[in-house]
Amino acid sequence: MAEHDAVEVILAKRDGQELSDSQIDWVIRNYTDGVVAEEQMAALNMAILWRGMTRREIARWTAAMIATGERLSFASLSRPTADKHSTGGVGDKITLPLAPLVAACGVAVPQLSGRGLGHTGGTLDKLESIAGWRASLTNEQMLDQLESIGAVVCAAGSGLAPADRKLYALRDVTGTVESIPLIASSIMSKKIAEGTGVLVLDVKVGSGAFMKTLPAARELARTMVDLGTDAGVHTVALLTDMATPLGRTAGNALEVAESVEVLAGGGPADVVELTLALAREMLLGAGVTDVDPADVLASGRAMDAWRAMIAAQDGDPDAPLPVAAEQHVVLAPSSGVLTRLDALAVGLAAWRLGAGRERKEDPVSAGAGVVWHARPGDAVTAGAPLFTLHADDPARFERALASLEGGYDIEEAVEGTPFEPTPLLLDRIS
Amino acid sequence: MAEHDAVEVILAKRDGQELSDSQIDWVIRNYTDGVVAEEQMAALNMAILWRGMTRREIARWTAAMIATGERLSFASLSRPTADKHSTGGVGDKITLPLAPLVAACGVAVPQLSGRGLGHTGGTLDKLESIAGWRASLTNEQMLDQLESIGAVVCAAGSGLAPADRKLYALRDVTGTVESIPLIASSIMSKKIAEGTGVLVLDVKVGSGAFMKTLPAARELARTMVDLGTDAGVHTVALLTDMATPLGRTAGNALEVAESVEVLAGGGPADVVELTLALAREMLLGAGVTDVDPADVLASGRAMDAWRAMIAAQDGDPDAPLPVAAEQHVVLAPSSGVLTRLDALAVGLAAWRLGAGRERKEDPVSAGAGVVWHARPGDAVTAGAPLFTLHADDPARFERALASLEGGYDIEEAVEGTPFEPTPLLLDRIS
Repeated sequence: MAEHDAVEVILAKRDGQELSDSQIDWVIRNYTDGVVAEEQMAALNMAILWRGMTRREIARWTAAMIATGERLSFASLSRPTADKHSTGGVGDKITLPLAPLVAACGVAVPQLSGRGLGHTGGTLDKLESIAGWRASLTNEQMLDQLESIGAVVCAAGSGLAPADRKLYALRDVTGTVESIPLIASSIMSKKIAEGTGVLVLDVKVGSGAFMKTLPAARELARTMVDLGTDAGVHTVALLTDMATPLGRTAGNALEVAESVEVLAGGGPADVVELTLALAREMLLGAGVTDVDPADVLASGRAMDAWRAMIAAQDGDPDAPLPVAAEQHVVLAPSSGVLTRLDALAVGLAAWRLGAGRERKEDPVSAGAGVVWHARPGDAVTAGAPLFTLHADDPARFERALASLEGGYDIEEAVEGTPFEPTPLLLDRIS
Repeated sequence: MAEHDAVEVILAKRDGQELSDSQIDWVIRNYTDGVVAEEQMAALNMAILWRGMTRREIARWTAAMIATGERLSFASLSRPTADKHSTGGVGDKITLPLAPLVAACGVAVPQLSGRGLGHTGGTLDKLESIAGWRASLTNEQMLDQLESIGAVVCAAGSGLAPADRKLYALRDVTGTVESIPLIASSIMSKKIAEGTGVLVLDVKVGSGAFMKTLPAARELARTMVDLGTDAGVHTVALLTDMATPLGRTAGNALEVAESVEVLAGGGPADVVELTLALAREMLLGAGVTDVDPADVLASGRAMDAWRAMIAAQDGDPDAPLPVAAEQHVVLAPSSGVLTRLDALAVGLAAWRLGAGRERKEDPVSAGAGVVWHARPGDAVTAGAPLFTLHADDPARFERALASLEGGYDIEEAVEGTPFEPTPLLLDRIS
């Protein structure tokens, strides 16, 4: 490998040049090994945020991060695999009904997940509200479960793209998170290293999401689809609304309960719609075109897969879910139609109630969170419950209430001009 | 003091906002104290390099750095003080004749200097080639010498703007040196903390200088003059050519010898011209208008001040200067007029011969360096000596010769069209 030095690579990007393959390989490898210092990588990240990277640079940067760790393979399985990744939203529990549903349709779903940080919840935190369930599996246990049940949600091992793990922690403290090349390479390095054949991306757009506007979300989606495609993974992205939170709940156990409702054939319409849309993309990518996931959901077979998946990781699917010690009900201040419910306001409220963590070493509360009793387009009556807040410590209600203030609008209904909520599915990029 | 956090300050500058006084004070103080991490300051520096700073921000950034350390005062002296700072060039030994000359004219000159890094030499390295001379003085010794002799060149203590010392080391390894706000505040924080009443800046322009173009040099000069003026220091900048090296020598003892020639009334015309121009600015700033430094130089009184200044710091002004063990003569390959002598090529050659250091802990060779026997405009004859290289180790000649290759042009003289070298003094900013 050619020898470079960190200042040379920083200056090249700072001055707007395209980095060579050899410069990228050198800097990622030597950063992982501690030769390139944290402050040098911080300066390089800021220069990348400023100057951007070409498609070739992003692909190489991603490949260099993958090369720092192990690669998994699902080639030994008897069925195809499809994975889903969401860029993170409020009330986004879709992985929970989706993984067993797609498994019940005959495609294996490996979901190597993380914990939540900030106002969007983490899939592992949600499942850990189920008594006994454990997130850590060996690679062998994961493969066995994928073969026997077809769905596994577990903690991503530290062996996949360790450069990304180090880089993400650095970006978090140096104001260099919001760079599309860095976001895309971070997500895709882990997904490509994981070895899935098909990847469906759920790129969220709106106040509660990382990408606030459709053009920014489209650019991120396009970058990730290109990266996956260049690496031989069948990759599709759906752009979906995150101006409004998903479903009717945000919080760990609350979202598990809502997911079980969906698996039982009920649940909020938007959660069902998004689960089916993502399932269809995963099945299509895996070449399974003769099964309708709506039928499988209605048949109860997705629920069977869910129960098997939870039990295989020592969880008890029949155990009652934890409930927070305290509740506080917010009543609707006027009558009319709910025309806006802001995802960020709801996400921050749930986070402040204890559902999320501020620092990665913080614990989360299983029962804490927010239930909203109306969604945009629904009629509300003055004095009727609009939100129920759940927390273990009543001292948390005040700051949660403050974040909900101004987070919704109730307008008088006008005869003949019904309110039209924003559609959930905004675009598809393949 | 208001509380901030590092990511907030980084994001503000990254997104193009003006930092508040409180944000600047907080980040400089907490970086000096180790609360703001090196990687966070590296990201902030890159964002400053990208987005720039307003005049107000630069002034506050400088004041915050000064506030991390001690401030000196020359108010107790019986005469006015004037200081000179050069942004660094090849063969730039001007401080050596200038300080005693201005002292001999009745104005005290405190020159708190540094050591060289890279292809431009350091004033302390040059003076240390004089037997016995020592760079370290206490503040009291410095004041005594300024009162009795009027000139002192010594090592800047670590007490002045310690934030700058830490920041400079960081910028050096993170590709964030070339930011005008950061360069200007680094230089001016030390000069303002030092407490001089008058400051004359010699801002170098050209291949051998930090600023390669006149517009960039003008912006740096303007920024520093504004900073000094805002802090109550009478500040003037001269922009001077550094496409060609100064004088006829680059190297520690070689430059001391050339400086002594100037003090004796001889020496290269350009060194004399720049010394007198800077002396006049210093005297003018200090309100001394009845003395012509050219007369003082001719009278031998500047030489007397030099001898006293060297002796006061235990140096022997009569001791023979060190001579390098080996010499290598480069002959002119053709006859004609020397039309170009590149400062960077000469500076790199001197550095590679051992006159400069690569890392700050490296020693320098007192005798090493380059003598050039012609300056642009001079006639040269094929086969006559053009350069003499001096080194303690003959193995160093090869790389020094490589850096001189392509570093000069000899053209045939054309009757009636004499070659006009670039002027030395390019502009004045006050």
